[in-house]
Amino acid sequence: MTYCVAMLLDAGLVFASDTRTNAGVDHIATFRKMTVYEKPGDRVLVMLTAGNLAVSQSVVTILNENTRADDGRPHVWNVPSMFAAARMIGSALRDIHQLDGEHMKQHQTEFNASILLGGQIRGEPPRLFNIYAAGNFIEATTETPYFQAGEVKYGKPIIDRVITRKSSIEEGIQCTLISFDSTIRSNLSVGTPIDLLSYARDSLRVDVRRSIDADDPYFKDIKRRWADGLRELFSRLPDPSWNESPQPR
Amino acid sequence: MTYCVAMLLDAGLVFASDTRTNAGVDHIATFRKMTVYEKPGDRVLVMLTAGNLAVSQSVVTILNENTRADDGRPHVWNVPSMFAAARMIGSALRDIHQLDGEHMKQHQTEFNASILLGGQIRGEPPRLFNIYAAGNFIEATTETPYFQAGEVKYGKPIIDRVITRKSSIEEGIQCTLISFDSTIRSNLSVGTPIDLLSYARDSLRVDVRRSIDADDPYFKDIKRRWADGLRELFSRLPDPSWNESPQPR
Repeated sequence: MTYCVAMLLDAGLVFASDTRTNAGVDHIATFRKMTVYEKPGDRVLVMLTAGNLAVSQSVVTILNENTRADDGRPHVWNVPSMFAAARMIGSALRDIHQLDGEHMKQHQTEFNASILLGGQIRGEPPRLFNIYAAGNFIEATTETPYFQAGEVKYGKPIIDRVITRKSSIEEGIQCTLISFDSTIRSNLSVGTPIDLLSYARDSLRVDVRRSIDADDPYFKDIKRRWADGLRELFSRLPDPSWNESPQPR
Repeated sequence: MTYCVAMLLDAGLVFASDTRTNAGVDHIATFRKMTVYEKPGDRVLVMLTAGNLAVSQSVVTILNENTRADDGRPHVWNVPSMFAAARMIGSALRDIHQLDGEHMKQHQTEFNASILLGGQIRGEPPRLFNIYAAGNFIEATTETPYFQAGEVKYGKPIIDRVITRKSSIEEGIQCTLISFDSTIRSNLSVGTPIDLLSYARDSLRVDVRRSIDADDPYFKDIKRRWADGLRELFSRLPDPSWNESPQPR
């Protein structure tokens, strides 16, 4: 399984993905699920992939080959907008589906893929898309400033509780790491290292980019503070006080 | 969808279930998913059901009819142990599967059911079981003091963080309500009122039993304290401090 989060904040973008890939618990490997295309001063595109690894690797390969071919077709370095980039990735997914979809079905393998694409291209504001296996996609709005992919449920409540478009990049990073911690604790199939990237609006260059393992001092520090703080907060909750007003059975 | 939690603590048992049933978002209804059999001084059995409502209602009906028949077959008022009660429920599930399973399959309806059964029968300690659709089951142990059923993921991290066998009944109730709050916030298909029941070890009678709606003063109070406390805890987390040790890109 996989866990990916991408946030579109007024202050910029935050991305994170885990690196565990498995086909059953006895076949675990580490693969990067974050792909970054950066041309400082011009564009930063970040892609997080969840789903079938063969599908998502093929998408990356097609994008890279289109770049090398540079034969007039759009590629990551010349698409004029993030919307065009999302369509290009959707188109790559459709090409792969046409090639592999029927064969995968014959082997009872689902063609599942979910790609989060965010970034900024000079001339437009930062944007964030969630691209489905069918190649269609949705875009983050003010009301929904984040997307997740993969094993999304464990880590969703904390994002829902603290993140809005007005959150800072630092808050986005903190919340993302807490969300990963909650997911990793509850689900074996998501594991460190976590690839983390932050992007400050209009900077047109990557800000923080780190691979965070379980021993990372900052990750360990906020995990510990969060766990201790939660237990402390929990211990301060008032006891149930329904005795005064018993309900009929 | 459904959300059910049952905890087996040294101090006793805590049960909770939501009451929303839906077949698509435009067909929502309220059904009790908690069934209680109490004979003070002798036994308390509590059953929480998730999955196909027709299946779980049939289980309850079979249990009740067996009681009325009282024809020598085991029923809830005379089974000698919680283990025997779990087998009885498993057997009811198998009867229903034999009757309805093939027909449901022809209508592409999955025979899914998950039943949490906990309680105490005089002469043995409190026990908690998780009964599968196939009629087999597992029992809670010291290491795993709780079971969930239905939409379990959103509300799992907080239980994993704070509950152990040593937790008090009050802590069990608090954590259960926080877990429900997290689930309800993130998932439309789980809704109030929440049926809550607590049982003190060896009391052989139900302690607290309440139907908690969104306006319940205690539920509102701890929801607010938890939300405010989380945001306050979050605001005290240190900012990322990786600048001193930049990583190679």
